[in-house]
Amino acid sequence: MNRRHFFRNSSLALAGTGLIGPQPLFAASAQKAKNIIFLVSDGMSTGTLHMANLYCERTLGRSSHWIQLYKDRKASRGLMDTQSANSIVTDSAAGSSAFGGGFKVNNGSLNIHPDGRENMPIWQKFKKAGKKAGIVTSVTATHATPAGFCVTSKSRNAEPEIAEKYLELGIDVVMGGGDEHFNAEHRKDKKDLYAAYAAKGYEVAKSRDELQKISAKKPLLAIFSSGAIPYAIDRENDPELKKTTPSLAEMAKSAIEVLSKHQNGFVLQIEGGKVDWAAHANDIAGLIYDQLAFDEAIKVAIDFAEKDKNTLVIMTTDHGNANPGTISGGKASEGFDSIRNYKKTNEWLLNQITKDTTASQIKDLIHATNGFAPTDEEIKSIKSYYDDIVRGEDGLYNYKKVPFKLYSEIQKKYNYIGWISMSHSSDHVEVAAYGPGSELLQPYCMNTDLHYLMLQAAEVPNSF
Amino acid sequence: MNRRHFFRNSSLALAGTGLIGPQPLFAASAQKAKNIIFLVSDGMSTGTLHMANLYCERTLGRSSHWIQLYKDRKASRGLMDTQSANSIVTDSAAGSSAFGGGFKVNNGSLNIHPDGRENMPIWQKFKKAGKKAGIVTSVTATHATPAGFCVTSKSRNAEPEIAEKYLELGIDVVMGGGDEHFNAEHRKDKKDLYAAYAAKGYEVAKSRDELQKISAKKPLLAIFSSGAIPYAIDRENDPELKKTTPSLAEMAKSAIEVLSKHQNGFVLQIEGGKVDWAAHANDIAGLIYDQLAFDEAIKVAIDFAEKDKNTLVIMTTDHGNANPGTISGGKASEGFDSIRNYKKTNEWLLNQITKDTTASQIKDLIHATNGFAPTDEEIKSIKSYYDDIVRGEDGLYNYKKVPFKLYSEIQKKYNYIGWISMSHSSDHVEVAAYGPGSELLQPYCMNTDLHYLMLQAAEVPNSF
Repeated sequence: MNRRHFFRNSSLALAGTGLIGPQPLFAASAQKAKNIIFLVSDGMSTGTLHMANLYCERTLGRSSHWIQLYKDRKASRGLMDTQSANSIVTDSAAGSSAFGGGFKVNNGSLNIHPDGRENMPIWQKFKKAGKKAGIVTSVTATHATPAGFCVTSKSRNAEPEIAEKYLELGIDVVMGGGDEHFNAEHRKDKKDLYAAYAAKGYEVAKSRDELQKISAKKPLLAIFSSGAIPYAIDRENDPELKKTTPSLAEMAKSAIEVLSKHQNGFVLQIEGGKVDWAAHANDIAGLIYDQLAFDEAIKVAIDFAEKDKNTLVIMTTDHGNANPGTISGGKASEGFDSIRNYKKTNEWLLNQITKDTTASQIKDLIHATNGFAPTDEEIKSIKSYYDDIVRGEDGLYNYKKVPFKLYSEIQKKYNYIGWISMSHSSDHVEVAAYGPGSELLQPYCMNTDLHYLMLQAAEVPNSF
Repeated sequence: MNRRHFFRNSSLALAGTGLIGPQPLFAASAQKAKNIIFLVSDGMSTGTLHMANLYCERTLGRSSHWIQLYKDRKASRGLMDTQSANSIVTDSAAGSSAFGGGFKVNNGSLNIHPDGRENMPIWQKFKKAGKKAGIVTSVTATHATPAGFCVTSKSRNAEPEIAEKYLELGIDVVMGGGDEHFNAEHRKDKKDLYAAYAAKGYEVAKSRDELQKISAKKPLLAIFSSGAIPYAIDRENDPELKKTTPSLAEMAKSAIEVLSKHQNGFVLQIEGGKVDWAAHANDIAGLIYDQLAFDEAIKVAIDFAEKDKNTLVIMTTDHGNANPGTISGGKASEGFDSIRNYKKTNEWLLNQITKDTTASQIKDLIHATNGFAPTDEEIKSIKSYYDDIVRGEDGLYNYKKVPFKLYSEIQKKYNYIGWISMSHSSDHVEVAAYGPGSELLQPYCMNTDLHYLMLQAAEVPNSF
């Protein structure tokens, strides 16, 4: 193939059902990527990547897998702009659509161009090119980030419809949480999507046990929970959850097992979706543990790619969130190390408390869960919150309106961790690539560039 | 020279007066760097680099010079660990000592190893190798970051002694603020260091005008202010200051003019020191303008290096500070853009207010300076602070105990900028390199690695 002309046909004039992106500026890849694994830690600020590594170094005596790839000089790195079409701060729908559709779109929409036209999602392009395609996530399988690689939708909230679209498109692996969008009992239209997927030849798994028993010879729908999968730290410290719910790494491994049997190659998105939720909750242990669960999924992907030698692995995030970081002070190191005493998320802890919980019980709960003894004043501020819960804190993914902000302010005095807000930031973010096509990654890029990078790495012409 | 043996003599056993660092792991440089310009934006978090670029893009219609180097693929990039010997969060003394001495030291000290031995500072090494050496900064010339490349000192606060040490060492360009450490009237020991420098053959400049008239044929002492140089935004909007005080870029240009006449080459540190101070003050306009002043100094360095072709330019920071960032929300973009209406630093603004300033005057002052109309409640909170100023806010570089934190919390409602604290963070930071030796920069490095990278790039054996 004449590589210089490789993308000549990818102009807007040739666009069919969807918009087709601009000419990529990358040099031709030295080797073709048969498979692509796109790992996205949702809402990962610079400090999140850093603190997960710092936690590894100080607690486990090793680097995170992500940072180790840099130390071993195995991955290329880029700094990435994440703005959406209508804001300097993207949401996950516009973020995933940039990767997935190759164009900036407005926040909230999935691959709908600001002018109303539809951008063809990248997993559809790869399906048309004969590859298998999958999505794995720790939040609902129909959430914005996986959806942005598969579907077009005016609203990211159309999760029940997105669950149906995956089936129509024949997405080969659909894995994560979100039972309510597949289960006839919980869907408004009472459609049984589990049955519909099965009727179309999918294997269906609903627990870690069932996942481990799949034949891996058919497409797979694996949904493990209503809503998101439990936070990694809650799973880690709950033997029952650990037994019934797979880790993100286990999910990634099963997905690769299913997809890699196909001779034409595969594409797979793996999302660490609860990293974003933990950042929205200003929950440092939730954040670090879910980032480390994501890091273990990186290891699964890299281990496969190292053996396979034909797999491009991309690691990135869609945007920063809350810019968490350590705070200078006499006890910054000790404060950071105290996080290793945390046993549960703040979500778990704060949901243990009710109006009737006594001050003494709150004190014991915090000591048992976070390892520090709160002052009477701090206990009083928490207690007063529950005495008047109707005024509950707002915030994305704070379904029960627990006092996330108040509690992280209390924790800050002990762990020296600060947050700028409970929402996304516009910061440049980290992107890294390993394997064939990784040389295409530029030192500075737009999130939309990754769309064309994937196509070029796999030598899939952008003409549909 | 046999490159494989180049650093064989750099073992601890051969250390003379100071500790000598470990063997570098870098591959041999393709070309020798005759000159090195080390640019350090003190306390630059990821968000600071990002927002300066975002401000450029949205207000000036171009990228920052730093980011443009990435877009043009002219610079190599690394992610850098900044921890000090005794904390996960470094101060500027330990940060500069890591670059400057090649070893991690405890916070507060300059090139004093935790075991008490002295590490030889890198500008001394280069002086011994026959090069000229200089320091330029927007804070006091004797501040931790320039000092860490030149001297050893148990305390970064020994600025009057450091001013003398520079002279003893014959540092060829000493430029910045800090008149109180050179001026007989203000030094406790009443020594006139201006006269002492002049007696040793230095040209002495004390204003922008005098700087522009130097012969550039002698070593140079140029001190423009008591304490730090004014913030860039205050200078920009004050015609008198703009006339009397040079910009960081002008200072950089003069320093290069003096140093580059020497045939054996030179080394120069240029510090954007007030980026750190603005972060400590949670002052977004102060931060962005000083980062952009630093960015203009980058341009001066790169312009020189592009012509010279023998100059390695390193751009980095010693640590993050306050992890500033934009906050998602309906008006994030408009909020960010409103910063272009800011005319002065918060330090300037808050020092205009006294106990006697009326609510109406505060309102007018804020509107004139920041372009928004504060609510009565916000004015009341500011006013109540001054009514009881004895309880003033603490904080590094907050000499007059003005309410930086309170005011940035008010601004946040209008500009959507958040901060995690008023102090340093442990985040990984950005490092970039241009020119001969830039290929030595690894994707992940320790701050100490830059010490050996500079020596290797210039082919100066680490044996003294």
